[in-house]
Amino acid sequence: MRLSRSLIPTLKETPAEAQIVSHRLMLRAGLIRQQSAGIYAWLPAGLRVLHNIANIVREEQARAGSQEILMPTIQSAELWRESGRYDAYGPEMLRIRDRHDREMLYGPTNEEMLTAIMRDSVQSYRDLPQMLYQIQWKFRDEVRPRFGVLRGREFYMKDGYSFDLDYEGAVESYRRMMLAYMRTFKRMGVRAVPMRADTGPIGGNLSHEFHILAPTGESGVFYDSSFETIELGDDAYDYEARADLDAFFDRMTSLYAATDEKHDEAAWAKVPEDRRREGRGIEVGQIFYFGTKYSQAMNFTVVGPDGARLHPEMGSYGIGVSRLTGAIIEASHDEAGIIWPDAIAPFRASILNLRQGDQVTDALCERIYDALGRDALYDDREARAGEKFADADLMGHPWQVIVGPRGAAKGQVELKHRRTGERAELDIESALAKVRV
Amino acid sequence: MRLSRSLIPTLKETPAEAQIVSHRLMLRAGLIRQQSAGIYAWLPAGLRVLHNIANIVREEQARAGSQEILMPTIQSAELWRESGRYDAYGPEMLRIRDRHDREMLYGPTNEEMLTAIMRDSVQSYRDLPQMLYQIQWKFRDEVRPRFGVLRGREFYMKDGYSFDLDYEGAVESYRRMMLAYMRTFKRMGVRAVPMRADTGPIGGNLSHEFHILAPTGESGVFYDSSFETIELGDDAYDYEARADLDAFFDRMTSLYAATDEKHDEAAWAKVPEDRRREGRGIEVGQIFYFGTKYSQAMNFTVVGPDGARLHPEMGSYGIGVSRLTGAIIEASHDEAGIIWPDAIAPFRASILNLRQGDQVTDALCERIYDALGRDALYDDREARAGEKFADADLMGHPWQVIVGPRGAAKGQVELKHRRTGERAELDIESALAKVRV
Repeated sequence: MRLSRSLIPTLKETPAEAQIVSHRLMLRAGLIRQQSAGIYAWLPAGLRVLHNIANIVREEQARAGSQEILMPTIQSAELWRESGRYDAYGPEMLRIRDRHDREMLYGPTNEEMLTAIMRDSVQSYRDLPQMLYQIQWKFRDEVRPRFGVLRGREFYMKDGYSFDLDYEGAVESYRRMMLAYMRTFKRMGVRAVPMRADTGPIGGNLSHEFHILAPTGESGVFYDSSFETIELGDDAYDYEARADLDAFFDRMTSLYAATDEKHDEAAWAKVPEDRRREGRGIEVGQIFYFGTKYSQAMNFTVVGPDGARLHPEMGSYGIGVSRLTGAIIEASHDEAGIIWPDAIAPFRASILNLRQGDQVTDALCERIYDALGRDALYDDREARAGEKFADADLMGHPWQVIVGPRGAAKGQVELKHRRTGERAELDIESALAKVRV
Repeated sequence: MRLSRSLIPTLKETPAEAQIVSHRLMLRAGLIRQQSAGIYAWLPAGLRVLHNIANIVREEQARAGSQEILMPTIQSAELWRESGRYDAYGPEMLRIRDRHDREMLYGPTNEEMLTAIMRDSVQSYRDLPQMLYQIQWKFRDEVRPRFGVLRGREFYMKDGYSFDLDYEGAVESYRRMMLAYMRTFKRMGVRAVPMRADTGPIGGNLSHEFHILAPTGESGVFYDSSFETIELGDDAYDYEARADLDAFFDRMTSLYAATDEKHDEAAWAKVPEDRRREGRGIEVGQIFYFGTKYSQAMNFTVVGPDGARLHPEMGSYGIGVSRLTGAIIEASHDEAGIIWPDAIAPFRASILNLRQGDQVTDALCERIYDALGRDALYDDREARAGEKFADADLMGHPWQVIVGPRGAAKGQVELKHRRTGERAELDIESALAKVRV
């Protein structure tokens, strides 16, 4: 895209309302704009990040055997009365009355709806197991929305659900998702640590939260420092081999990691002292086994192999897609701006034209822009070089192709790597080859 | 996907609530399930169609130079008071109060929000023209939702907006979208005819609706039969050449086509009698020029080249993405079920295993399924052949690879083309080659 004709409104000043760095940078880099408290519009560069994250989630869910569906945002209150959650849910639920005065709500999650769909569609043990997920907007009417997309009211989330015939099947689904989640976060270029988490009254010890470590995290976390170095989303494990799922799960859970809510001093004491780390984490996912809670409450049964009806065992699995954009920035930025991991960057490269209007410089920039196509953001504004440098660092694309009149005359550009700061004078083809890798 | 482990719940009986064929077929083929009046969940096969349609829209919008953004579903009433539409809009607007008793609404369209975003972000004539679009869920609280996704309450729509410095620029944007729309519908494998449409008090004669011709359409339409045969989304036209945009626009508008609201008997009389067609159409898109209506009401100005502030000229451009799934089925089905155009079919092929459990047949099916991957739906259910034939026709994927024990023993399959009904006995490689084209 050409920056001069793009809605990427970068800001020099830090907006007063933004308290944490990711919120400041998302506003300053022109990724989002607030529309109401905790409700954001995603501008072109921000939406590219959101799509990149969603697509990684999608690919890894498909690999793990989960089917994508899409449920509506507006649900009927009736459905939530079936599970008993309509009255139990607090003021975070956005309750709505339609023109016929029917009670509706903006869905914060979808256990009820999907259980009802399955109840209508699935009759036999032969139809299970199944895993399904969606990536859809949800609403939680936070009393004090803040921290930008980290704690917004309207948020984009992957919510997945598993349906199994028995406990052993549910455990396998859960472990499948553990592997899928670790691969998902790894592909995004961040380190997310699986932590033992609260399960509430139902669910035994089967709940894990996935935390990105960052000083601004909302949760205190305790973890074995091995999590800073071990391989977290190894491709060697095979979804179709139960032994692989178990081995991966054991590897992830044998090392200590817990949020402060679940912190266990006795277990902590057994971690070698030099490997004990305390810090803060941002929760970007949670997986949860809850047995027959919803299948019983909503009377979802299938006919088992012996002819008797049974209540399927369920789990649910969330990833905060919009939240991840902020969380990744919290973990990956410097004084000058965002440092996007390659896999989710809105663009592979910024092209900086340092002498807009100079024929040779313009021509070279156009040539590079043609070659990179939709992977490049071409800063073709009539602006000072200093402003272009600052904005390129702020926006944080992995590469900056810097084109000035002196280099252009020799057919050369300066290529800067945003993360390392390394710069090199290169001819066009060498620069393009590096950017394209 | 393996049908035995997929949430594609086909139905033998016709659901009583469905009055028109697309609604019946979408329910029977397991594409959607109603959750509340006019509100649907999209199951895996239905969602694939929705994504395929959305991706074609996306690609053609990008080619036309429009930037993708994503605005939230929930908007503040304040914003709509600025334009005066909050009170003007009827009970179709879903009005909401949040926990702090602030007035909100579920957006039915986004002229106000995007004008406000542009007002905050764009200051100079140098930043224009720009075109932006989103594909997002919207809500219109229809008093009597019906016809499935054709007139639902929660619906998925592409809404685009253009911002130009002057009338001539706005006309160019409008013509750009005319070309983009005709290409979009052509790629979906349907014939959509651009019809003169009502503009309301503002907008001169610059509004067109795009109608798919179908006997169940909600609008009466009058058109020149040339629209049944001429090339509608020609690739020869270049977006960057204004003369091309004008020539294409003239070609599309020189032939008579109008909805009954805009029908002009005098002009109609000039159409040669043997080319006059009356029928019914389903509106799947509308483009609209409305000048400075919103930029004035909301005081959005930019500094012009002469230093004076001016109100940008705007247009808006809609495509009904969820509606298109139903509209295309209305135009493309037979007694047995849906006939998907190739470009939007949920799967390229059904694989029908006629003797589930027979070793040779199973092995051959698996081989074909491996080769086709995510493009195939493998009917591996323990079901009668007749049921598999009926479901394959109902679901309407372009090809059916029929594998029975006799053919399998010779390494042969029967390949059926859904649209033409043509069948051929082929070896595996020949069948795969046809399916993959």
